[in-house]
Amino acid sequence: MSEELDLAALQPREVPAAVTKTLENYLKSRGDDVASVDAVYTEAIDSLHSFVLNGGKRVRPAFAWQGWLGAGGLEGRFSPAEDSQAVMNAVSALELIQACALIHDDIIDDADTRRGAPTIHKVFEAKHEANSWNGAADRFGISAAILIGDVALTWADDMMHSSGLSSEALTRALVPWRAMRTEVLGGQLLDITAEASRDSRVETAEKINLFKTAAYTIERPLHIGAAIAGAPAELVEAYRSFGRDIGVAFQLRDDQLGVFGDPEVTGKPAGDDLREGKRTVLVGQALSLYLDSAPEKARFIDERLGAVSSAADIDELRNLIADSGAADAVEREIDRLTSRAFSTIENADLPATSRENLIAMGVRATARQH
Amino acid sequence: MSEELDLAALQPREVPAAVTKTLENYLKSRGDDVASVDAVYTEAIDSLHSFVLNGGKRVRPAFAWQGWLGAGGLEGRFSPAEDSQAVMNAVSALELIQACALIHDDIIDDADTRRGAPTIHKVFEAKHEANSWNGAADRFGISAAILIGDVALTWADDMMHSSGLSSEALTRALVPWRAMRTEVLGGQLLDITAEASRDSRVETAEKINLFKTAAYTIERPLHIGAAIAGAPAELVEAYRSFGRDIGVAFQLRDDQLGVFGDPEVTGKPAGDDLREGKRTVLVGQALSLYLDSAPEKARFIDERLGAVSSAADIDELRNLIADSGAADAVEREIDRLTSRAFSTIENADLPATSRENLIAMGVRATARQH
Repeated sequence: MSEELDLAALQPREVPAAVTKTLENYLKSRGDDVASVDAVYTEAIDSLHSFVLNGGKRVRPAFAWQGWLGAGGLEGRFSPAEDSQAVMNAVSALELIQACALIHDDIIDDADTRRGAPTIHKVFEAKHEANSWNGAADRFGISAAILIGDVALTWADDMMHSSGLSSEALTRALVPWRAMRTEVLGGQLLDITAEASRDSRVETAEKINLFKTAAYTIERPLHIGAAIAGAPAELVEAYRSFGRDIGVAFQLRDDQLGVFGDPEVTGKPAGDDLREGKRTVLVGQALSLYLDSAPEKARFIDERLGAVSSAADIDELRNLIADSGAADAVEREIDRLTSRAFSTIENADLPATSRENLIAMGVRATARQH
Repeated sequence: MSEELDLAALQPREVPAAVTKTLENYLKSRGDDVASVDAVYTEAIDSLHSFVLNGGKRVRPAFAWQGWLGAGGLEGRFSPAEDSQAVMNAVSALELIQACALIHDDIIDDADTRRGAPTIHKVFEAKHEANSWNGAADRFGISAAILIGDVALTWADDMMHSSGLSSEALTRALVPWRAMRTEVLGGQLLDITAEASRDSRVETAEKINLFKTAAYTIERPLHIGAAIAGAPAELVEAYRSFGRDIGVAFQLRDDQLGVFGDPEVTGKPAGDDLREGKRTVLVGQALSLYLDSAPEKARFIDERLGAVSSAADIDELRNLIADSGAADAVEREIDRLTSRAFSTIENADLPATSRENLIAMGVRATARQH
């Protein structure tokens, strides 16, 4: 596909651009299928193109690619080497699942912006309004975004299956691919149910972190890369353990930033998670720490969560959570998880460069400021 | 999977039950994946089980199965015979795409019931209300239904790819499989856009019929069956032509029933499409027939469509459409399409039984009362 890129010599920092190029080629290759229906469809799918190509850190493909490299995929250490572009196609397909996840999630969260631009349902709502069309503009926006997310989801599968991987490698990769898609949707269902039912148990938040974030973002992408390379069970297990630990730590860091983060760094309003009422591990910890010692504080947090908007109210809630010791506990948990993850990688049967790359990626995902 | 069924001896009327049994086994096989996330997920997916297993005429798998049989799939006429259960798995996967299409469509159409039961988003809305959960119940229902539809869509692919087809047959089948999913989503996008923009052109309605109904319901399922059997291009083209014609005629019949149908037979209120304001070929024809001779009647129809509710107003609109000659024109078009389709099948290289079965299926899909 991308004859200009020497994928074998790709440096980690060059992976995102290679993924974007690969996605661009794939989307272009579906242009005729779309145009054969109608120009209305082409125009709608153009918004998917912009969404997929103009943003995203390509975290999932990067981990999958690194997983493949570390398992000697390039030189065919454990099974016959696959074509590098085929591997790049397969790992880039993860970004189309992610496109669907974000487009549908933005409907669920009623979010107005994403990646600095209006969300897909808002784009179509605005189009409806601009044309003074019939019916409710917001419902039209949601309907179009549901369908466009569905297109991305089916194309993710199409891209995976037409990646050019050998049927042996594809069959191996489909095991984590299948598991991942079912897990992330389960994590999302659990998330919306926990929020609706005000389930603040730490165990629930931990499960959501595991399935909605860790498995989907790091564990399964690494697993997919390893499976393509035909890695032995021991290496797969090391990758998965690293991926779960770093993935959960990444989410815990995100939760800390959502409450204590500097708006200048996070790009979101201060205490945004408190305003939204997210039931994170951090909040669950605070509630649990106050439960015996100061039940009235636990009740106060539980009631105000999602019901605060003024800076003063947010400050009060934030301080109460910090005073509970929950933030320190979460920070210790991040340390514990990242240390364990790094030691897993240190002890895994991996080339030195792969170890360094994975640890660098783990540090970036979990560092205090990012 | 279903050791009790002799698939090789399956009669056409037994296909739906075999599909349901196959779907039941597949859904059961995913139980552990779901349970490994949380009991909340298992409970949510139970509603998908009920939806998939308790209804549906299995039209798409039936056409795909018939397409495979007609192309000598059972005896390996054009390529080595595939395992019958593998073929049944592959064609049954079409019902999981259909589950997603209906679940998401019911959100889009804001429909309360489907297959005589509450729609999935209504089930979850009611659950939210019954538990007095936090937030808006209707939004929760929509969110859960988006995610459950996504699960069905990813499982459709999983079921197809783990069907047990040989990699040669699978590779062949993926060509129409890929096209079909992109086409049906395009047809739906075109449909919601036409309704919003009050696009009443006959060409637009015809395109929607082709992609949202004909290709998705008959043409591509037959094509998938033929591809599994390795049928030659000529037979594939005959199937596809038959499928497009019968599929479009089926939709035209549905449009007639939506305006003129007897509620006792259709199970829907009389003139339901007029109340909903559907921009069908029938309506487009009426508008176009009145355009020169009686523009005020065209304007009247255009304005009242979707804005009538009383029986008298519906009667008036219905009579106006009938008087335009549009209903007769549509009836003639149904005749033309079905005749052409039957003659295509008469001339195709097919065993006599397959011809009879396909024609019987075509008659059932397009008959005046069904």
